[in-house]
Amino acid sequence: MSATVGIIGGGQLGRMLALAGIPLGVRCVVVEPASDPPAGRVADVIAAPYDDPGALAELARRCDVVTVELEGVPVDALAWLSEWVPVRPSAEAVAVAQDRLAEKRRFAALGIPTAPFAPWPAETGSDVVPDGDAIVKTRRGGFDGRGQRRITCANEISLAATQLGAPVIVEARLSFERELAVLAARGVDGDVAVWPVVDTVHAEGILRVARPLGRHQAEATAIVRALADHLEYVGVLAVELFDTGTGLIANEWAPRVHNSGHWTIEGSVTSQFEQHLRAILGWPLGDVSARGSSATVNIIGAAPGTEAVLAVPGAHLHLYDKAPRTGRKLGHVTLTAADDAELERRLQALERALGR
Amino acid sequence: MSATVGIIGGGQLGRMLALAGIPLGVRCVVVEPASDPPAGRVADVIAAPYDDPGALAELARRCDVVTVELEGVPVDALAWLSEWVPVRPSAEAVAVAQDRLAEKRRFAALGIPTAPFAPWPAETGSDVVPDGDAIVKTRRGGFDGRGQRRITCANEISLAATQLGAPVIVEARLSFERELAVLAARGVDGDVAVWPVVDTVHAEGILRVARPLGRHQAEATAIVRALADHLEYVGVLAVELFDTGTGLIANEWAPRVHNSGHWTIEGSVTSQFEQHLRAILGWPLGDVSARGSSATVNIIGAAPGTEAVLAVPGAHLHLYDKAPRTGRKLGHVTLTAADDAELERRLQALERALGR
Repeated sequence: MSATVGIIGGGQLGRMLALAGIPLGVRCVVVEPASDPPAGRVADVIAAPYDDPGALAELARRCDVVTVELEGVPVDALAWLSEWVPVRPSAEAVAVAQDRLAEKRRFAALGIPTAPFAPWPAETGSDVVPDGDAIVKTRRGGFDGRGQRRITCANEISLAATQLGAPVIVEARLSFERELAVLAARGVDGDVAVWPVVDTVHAEGILRVARPLGRHQAEATAIVRALADHLEYVGVLAVELFDTGTGLIANEWAPRVHNSGHWTIEGSVTSQFEQHLRAILGWPLGDVSARGSSATVNIIGAAPGTEAVLAVPGAHLHLYDKAPRTGRKLGHVTLTAADDAELERRLQALERALGR
Repeated sequence: MSATVGIIGGGQLGRMLALAGIPLGVRCVVVEPASDPPAGRVADVIAAPYDDPGALAELARRCDVVTVELEGVPVDALAWLSEWVPVRPSAEAVAVAQDRLAEKRRFAALGIPTAPFAPWPAETGSDVVPDGDAIVKTRRGGFDGRGQRRITCANEISLAATQLGAPVIVEARLSFERELAVLAARGVDGDVAVWPVVDTVHAEGILRVARPLGRHQAEATAIVRALADHLEYVGVLAVELFDTGTGLIANEWAPRVHNSGHWTIEGSVTSQFEQHLRAILGWPLGDVSARGSSATVNIIGAAPGTEAVLAVPGAHLHLYDKAPRTGRKLGHVTLTAADDAELERRLQALERALGR
């Protein structure tokens, strides 16, 4: 039995989804306006804007199910598509993820802790705009640290909002011990599988290292499961968390496969990419157990020396066929090892191989 | 750094080589006369016979190195190519593997035990044609049990040779306890890496199950290393062995990635496909350690139920996009497990899922 999956977006996430589909007999068709997209070598490409009516009609005609590899897809396009073909995750779920205010309000409604937040200007009597150390973020469209301004007192909000030039949300800036991410998949039948919680390291707003350690597994599982069940979500989703030392708070979530889950390709029995395809096609979810120790290191800005990386024991190189550019994610390396001590040594060897 | 690899042959082995290349930034170009070949979704295809001069010239022009995914490639074509581009493994190595007599004589010259054999009619004074239980095989072109006749006494050789209609070799039929395979890779620099020895189960001449158990590792390693070093081999090679209970004898070898090594995709740190690319591109060889327990089960003749297979814990499905036909390899499933006991249970569940 073969199946065809439509993907809105043809970047590296679409590429890795399509790669995961090939051995399963799943063909992927991506809609992507950019020329020569990373998914182009392994999927059919419809070169068009994400909401191009002709492209969407072609997707609906050719595909058994349609999904997204980025959250910035026009929701109207997904809503239109869903009248013709199953869209997983749903337009409603994507809409919640697109708006930081809706996202935070949804977390709050589900009893999931967040940093104090409010839209600015305040919309309701219960909106309390945080004072002191805070971050002003555009409600829509920010990623990898873009669309944000840090402030130290409420007087600065107005200027920051003007600079950002869009509706904003103000979030109190909490101190935290570490940043975590939890990824899960939810099937059409409501089955949920949650990978081990990942420790993440960011720099300049961009994920650098992701390593499954399973810290706060029960608490993180409860959070991602509550969100997924509430949204009747289908597919893989990711929640970014702060570990404050006294508990977890949710920062944001993504309705898609996620950079913090790339370790699953070699480090888990089932990769996030295969799992997403299984989920949206109504197939059984796979085992999400970790296989030994592993960690993913992002390759950002400059292409690595292939031979130097491959000389590191347990190194699995993943390049995205993207031209080098400052701050751009060009690929990643996942290191696998028998145990944490071996992984530490390999991480050090990889840092040297990457010239850091 | 990107590289382009030419592959003579576009079947499932070429497909899996090309798939392994994509994350490494390696592009593959295959030469394949069959329409809609398995490699076609992940590699550029030059639709032509394996020895088509125009196709070979295009390969030489476009590729950094050329390799084979089947041994039945005209050696003259490889020899011509090697004047323009590195061909790995070499035309000489492939020539030895194409002729069962040359193959057996080479084993013998290297002190690698074989069943008693001789060409028929005998060519030299030292050729002793086996009598009794024996197998008459075409010297060229047989695979998956084709091109063979079993006989019980030397009087039958003549008839068998006539039926096979080609030059033949007669091999004594030895009793053995099990069939094994050993895979290795040899790099441009002479570095050799040998995967754990695989137990194999055949039926009707076709491989059914391959499972790394590491039996007779030292003896098998000595055999494959002797052969690889002698041929100055570059790439992955496989030697099929019989375990007679009193030692190993070599049956045949293949100058390419091999069905008995598909378990390495999930079951080893480095897959045979990535390793072959590393070797022929002059890159460092990867770690060939096993990761937990694993086994590969071939899917032959009829397509499986995808959902039933994916419901088996630890099942990794690999379909080749080939139409069902009796005796045809359509795909494989590799099962991974934490230990051998868990693997046994999963193997039983997979057999049920495949309707056996």
